Amino acid sequence: MGNKEIRIRCWVELDGKKFFGPGPARLLDLIDNEGSIAKAAKCMGMSYKKAWDIVTDLNTRGKEPYVISRKGGEKGGGAELTAAGKLVMVKYRNLTQKLRSLVSEEEELLAHM
Amino acid sequence: MGNKEIRIRCWVELDGKKFFGPGPARLLDLIDNEGSIAKAAKCMGMSYKKAWDIVTDLNTRGKEPYVISRKGGEKGGGAELTAAGKLVMVKYRNLTQKLRSLVSEEEELLAHM
Repeated sequence: MGNKEIRIRCWVELDGKKFFGPGPARLLDLIDNEGSIAKAAKCMGMSYKKAWDIVTDLNTRGKEPYVISRKGGEKGGGAELTAAGKLVMVKYRNLTQKLRSLVSEEEELLAHM
Repeated sequence: MGNKEIRIRCWVELDGKKFFGPGPARLLDLIDNEGSIAKAAKCMGMSYKKAWDIVTDLNTRGKEPYVISRKGGEKGGGAELTAAGKLVMVKYRNLTQKLRSLVSEEEELLAHM
């Protein structure tokens, strides 16, 4: 019957509007690795403006900022995750991992597809 | 901070293409209740053609049909779920319920949002 797969998507809404999910999580992860919003955007094939808009949305709609960015300086600026940003990443990864492991235990659903 | 909610979506792909998920599950559920594809479509605010296309997709791409429909007859036709269709609904509901209960145990993620 070819390849069968249970897929899952998990995100957070604030007041009914998407706030955090796989896209922002990937962006924060890349900012953490690259130390720069511009480089993170490039890795995702996303415009700098789009990445900035996502970061601004996260930083302003949530309880506290997840990203700090610095302009200029010796290294030409850069960005990093705040403690809150790092914590959210850990919690989100933890949740998605648990969901994935539950799904992998329930693959008998696929026997009927 | 307003209303915060973890949302989740679970679906099945066959060969990388969506096959079963919340939409088809709702349609099958309504066919089961209404005994008719036309009535089920109406409940979902969906055209009859669209509902037929979904049923045809489910009936032909999967292992076995989930819906049997009859034309004409005393009651003017009708549709019902096959045993396989009923089983898939039970398994899918079971999985989504488990996912929801896992998510509700993990709501501390929201404390940081």
